[in-house]
Amino acid sequence: MRLSQVFTKTRKDTPADETAKNAQLLIQAGYIHKEMAGAYDYLPLGIKVLENIKQIVREEMNIISGQELIMTGIQKREIWEKTGRWDDKSVDVWFKSNLKDGTDVGFGWSHEEPIVEMMKQHISSYKDLPANVYQFQTKLRNELRAKSGIMRGREFVMKDMYSCSVDEAQHELFYQATIDAYKKVYERLGLGADTYVTFASGGAFTEFSHEFQTVCEAGEDVIYLHKEKNIAVNEEVLDDTNLAKLGIKREELEKVKSAEVGNIFNFGTHKSEQMDFAFTNEAGERQFVYLGSYGIGITRVMGVIAEKFSDDKGLVWPENVAPAKVYLAALGNIPSVISAADDLYNNLIKAGVTVLYDDRDIRAGEKFGDADLMGIPYRIVISPKTVEAGKHELKARTNDETKLLSSVEILKTLAE
Amino acid sequence: MRLSQVFTKTRKDTPADETAKNAQLLIQAGYIHKEMAGAYDYLPLGIKVLENIKQIVREEMNIISGQELIMTGIQKREIWEKTGRWDDKSVDVWFKSNLKDGTDVGFGWSHEEPIVEMMKQHISSYKDLPANVYQFQTKLRNELRAKSGIMRGREFVMKDMYSCSVDEAQHELFYQATIDAYKKVYERLGLGADTYVTFASGGAFTEFSHEFQTVCEAGEDVIYLHKEKNIAVNEEVLDDTNLAKLGIKREELEKVKSAEVGNIFNFGTHKSEQMDFAFTNEAGERQFVYLGSYGIGITRVMGVIAEKFSDDKGLVWPENVAPAKVYLAALGNIPSVISAADDLYNNLIKAGVTVLYDDRDIRAGEKFGDADLMGIPYRIVISPKTVEAGKHELKARTNDETKLLSSVEILKTLAE
Repeated sequence: MRLSQVFTKTRKDTPADETAKNAQLLIQAGYIHKEMAGAYDYLPLGIKVLENIKQIVREEMNIISGQELIMTGIQKREIWEKTGRWDDKSVDVWFKSNLKDGTDVGFGWSHEEPIVEMMKQHISSYKDLPANVYQFQTKLRNELRAKSGIMRGREFVMKDMYSCSVDEAQHELFYQATIDAYKKVYERLGLGADTYVTFASGGAFTEFSHEFQTVCEAGEDVIYLHKEKNIAVNEEVLDDTNLAKLGIKREELEKVKSAEVGNIFNFGTHKSEQMDFAFTNEAGERQFVYLGSYGIGITRVMGVIAEKFSDDKGLVWPENVAPAKVYLAALGNIPSVISAADDLYNNLIKAGVTVLYDDRDIRAGEKFGDADLMGIPYRIVISPKTVEAGKHELKARTNDETKLLSSVEILKTLAE
Repeated sequence: MRLSQVFTKTRKDTPADETAKNAQLLIQAGYIHKEMAGAYDYLPLGIKVLENIKQIVREEMNIISGQELIMTGIQKREIWEKTGRWDDKSVDVWFKSNLKDGTDVGFGWSHEEPIVEMMKQHISSYKDLPANVYQFQTKLRNELRAKSGIMRGREFVMKDMYSCSVDEAQHELFYQATIDAYKKVYERLGLGADTYVTFASGGAFTEFSHEFQTVCEAGEDVIYLHKEKNIAVNEEVLDDTNLAKLGIKREELEKVKSAEVGNIFNFGTHKSEQMDFAFTNEAGERQFVYLGSYGIGITRVMGVIAEKFSDDKGLVWPENVAPAKVYLAALGNIPSVISAADDLYNNLIKAGVTVLYDDRDIRAGEKFGDADLMGIPYRIVISPKTVEAGKHELKARTNDETKLLSSVEILKTLAE
């Protein structure tokens, strides 16, 4: 991508109406635009990060047999009334409106009930199970306050997955597979070391649910880490009884602020009973489907990464999520530089390396500033000096060491 | 994809509450699920078709320098008030709701105004232009009636693109490039031969706008074709004055029903003036940005393809949009058949051919029925007889001729 063709511009000033670091940085670097508190547009660089995150999640969900689909945002009152969750007293984040004939409609803050209702059309026998489906959905939640940038949105993207199983044993297999898949996801996103499987409050069917919490100053949660056992306990379930159950002692725990980047939940047959979602088992008997639900906040994850991987110069994307691997800065508007930069740009693309090519006619300092602010993992500089040396200058965003390398060496280094 | 792992089931009965053929077929074949009139979920096979269509459009928009982004669905009243389009009297398809503090919000039926408002932050000089952006957006429109299946939705996916130019000449270049890009899109979608650039009513700045209309019995429009000149005239502008301007005669025209699958529109500087979207020109003067807008109804296109490419057995997808190229049916639950089918399945995938592998333990007739109903372009049958012959049976969805081919021949035929 040539930056001369990208319409977004970076800005030096911090947006006055943003208190969240993630949103400040992402707006300054031209990744997002604020429509209103908690609702952001994703501009060309921003949508690339978002799609990179989604693709990592998609691959891992497909491996554990998740089937991708997409539900509607608009939803019917009747479906949610079956579980008592249409009422604003029971769910206080609904956006609602009406069809022309007065019919109530809601806008999806969750998709649990519609997914179950839809799947009733396709699942009728034990032979149809297990069935695990997921979507990347734009959720709308009428939050009272939204001050955490893209970490808590009135509109946000979530990967929500649902498992349908014949019984607890079948459910447990997928539940464990999902825990493992989530670990891989956060590992690939660069959050592995700081993300903990966290015991949190359960529901009608289980003692605990599991959250994935990433240590993060800007997070809204408080968890207690047990680093040795690589688990954590959410503040909400921290009491002596639970600690005894988990076999850990209070004094072994470290209190930290964290952001919930994922959660998995065992519904048992509670919701199936409410919604009459049943199948015929091998013995010919009618039995309720065993349900689980598994979320990953895609836009929140992007916000957490922006919070954690940034310094005083700007963003510092992990390679797997960066909008491009390389920032190629051509310095000086002279033919030999332009031709060397064009050549390297084309060769990098051919080698499958993603590049932001800064071919704009602006000062070197501005290019360096933008490379840092945008947080692209590698920077290559081509200048009259490097051209004369027959080399290019390579630098990683994470340190100040520069290397002079030939085209062949650069390609070898970056194309893996 | 192994069909034993796909949760959706086909059904023989026509859905009672659907009058539109596209929705009937897509529901029967398990591609979509109806949430309410005009709002459909896209199930695993359906989302594949949708993504195939989007990818074709994306590629062609990128070629003409479109930059992808994604706006929010939730929108602010103030932005739309600038052009007088918040008022329900002026736009009668709004879904609206309120934030907790009472603030009015609307849900995006269009994104023209928010896009302009956002771009004002980034465009200030003639050097920033041209800038062309697009998104694949889920639009919400509160339609009074929605009886055309996925061809007219209360919720639907649209590719909407906007061009910002310094003047009419720069605008005209992109406008023409888009016409050519759209022609390629419809060609690749299999609709090229039946899709006409159609003269329709213009706006403040132009005599005509251009629609892309596909001849289709289920369409809601009526157009008059001039086959020789490969253009058409929308009924709404069919009068002697306009015919004279276009240099065509009424008796040369053929009246047909059609579906509007795309439109392009010249705003001139009208909207920029309303919203104060200006830039500094080379002479240092303030000048309004010249705007264009370019839509393609992604879900509507899918509906039109379903309408046009189907027969009494079901859907007949063009290869470029089909959820898979091949339907591989293993007949008979015996080891030699399963092993031959598994081998071919793996080899096809390795060769980059997408496959729906019917590995279910059901009757041959059911598999053939599903292959036809789902509309997969090629069907391969592996049975005890074909295994004995050391061959596989290949048949195209569009004719009844079967061929016995070796694995090597099959791969050669299908992998191109």
